Amino acid sequence: MEFSSKLLERAVNEMSQLPGIGKRTALRLVLHMLRQPKEQTLALSEALKVMRNDVKFCKSCHNISDVDLCEICSSLNRNSELICVVEDIRDVMAIENTSSFKGLYHVLGGKISPMDGIGPHDLNIESLVTKVKEGKVKELIFALSSTMEGDTTNFYIYKQIQDYKVYTSTIARGISVGDELEYADEITLGRSIVNRIPFESSLKL
Amino acid sequence: MEFSSKLLERAVNEMSQLPGIGKRTALRLVLHMLRQPKEQTLALSEALKVMRNDVKFCKSCHNISDVDLCEICSSLNRNSELICVVEDIRDVMAIENTSSFKGLYHVLGGKISPMDGIGPHDLNIESLVTKVKEGKVKELIFALSSTMEGDTTNFYIYKQIQDYKVYTSTIARGISVGDELEYADEITLGRSIVNRIPFESSLKL
Ligand SMILES: [Zn+2]
Ligand SMILES: [Zn+2]
Repeated sequence: MEFSSKLLERAVNEMSQLPGIGKRTALRLVLHMLRQPKEQTLALSEALKVMRNDVKFCKSCHNISDVDLCEICSSLNRNSELICVVEDIRDVMAIENTSSFKGLYHVLGGKISPMDGIGPHDLNIESLVTKVKEGKVKELIFALSSTMEGDTTNFYIYKQIQDYKVYTSTIARGISVGDELEYADEITLGRSIVNRIPFESSLKL
Repeated sequence: MEFSSKLLERAVNEMSQLPGIGKRTALRLVLHMLRQPKEQTLALSEALKVMRNDVKFCKSCHNISDVDLCEICSSLNRNSELICVVEDIRDVMAIENTSSFKGLYHVLGGKISPMDGIGPHDLNIESLVTKVKEGKVKELIFALSSTMEGDTTNFYIYKQIQDYKVYTSTIARGISVGDELEYADEITLGRSIVNRIPFESSLKL
């Protein structure tokens, strides 16, 4: 792709670094920006910069937050002994949206995936295990997607904590196997939280 | 969609202003940025800002350019009496890529489209007509997409210049009717430039 402007080329190249955005799409988006009022692109540019520079992660659950301890973790109306383990913050948003869960979350930041070079130490697993060891948790709900990587991650965590006094469960799979959590409809997802089953029984399925 | 961070929400909202990018996609992209090194997002932010602030349009052909007169218009190796009329700079890039055209371009910046509120005066038509009236052009090649809006635009320009001494042609439609120029393969597109036909004959098809 030959560009008539270095500034345009640079913008297209940076945009096409994003997943699922090829050079053609990036060019389409950037040309759209040039047709819109300048303020709109400057607002986008500023929002991305500020977000990347200033966003924080909750020191307890690792959810994205503007403060050290997120709103969910610091709420007095939530059961801090019940922790739902999820892959990323989109899952927190999806479950919060169902209004069916009143415990806390623990955001792993991904799944164990040797193929992608992601091991247990790349994820927020240690802080979760520490919470359990300190006796602060009565129940862990595994809500990772039911893929091989999700199952591997569940099992890895389970092995680390099985000797401690904690009840483990997984969300009920009303959701079809292999589907991503965040695309499930609210009712199915809400029900799968309420109907969670002991983790041990899920191993036998 | 409920966000745990205002900074994240703002970034997602700005990203989702882009065409074809919904809230979910915007969130996926922004979360990806948070997993990448900070420098990458800052580079994207800066590239968009600089591009939007500093990009110029060639004062002759309206192509995007970093200087007042673009590289194509200022080249001594191109035939300045042959002008290919296109919708936007992606079409210039697509035709340049075929290496089959050695004239200049004129970028209209869109098509006449009453449905979208785009009239002749929203496009770079007047400067094209002026070029013709000044006797600087021997041939105009209409290379707009063959949609109703493209045909309307061709015809509008044709009416403005038909009393002047200029030959008008349209690119040969080896490309299927209704297809966008930029997605055509190089050979078909190159051939359609070489095999261009008189505009008058295209009216009879
Ligand atoms: Zn938290
Ligand atoms: Zn030019």
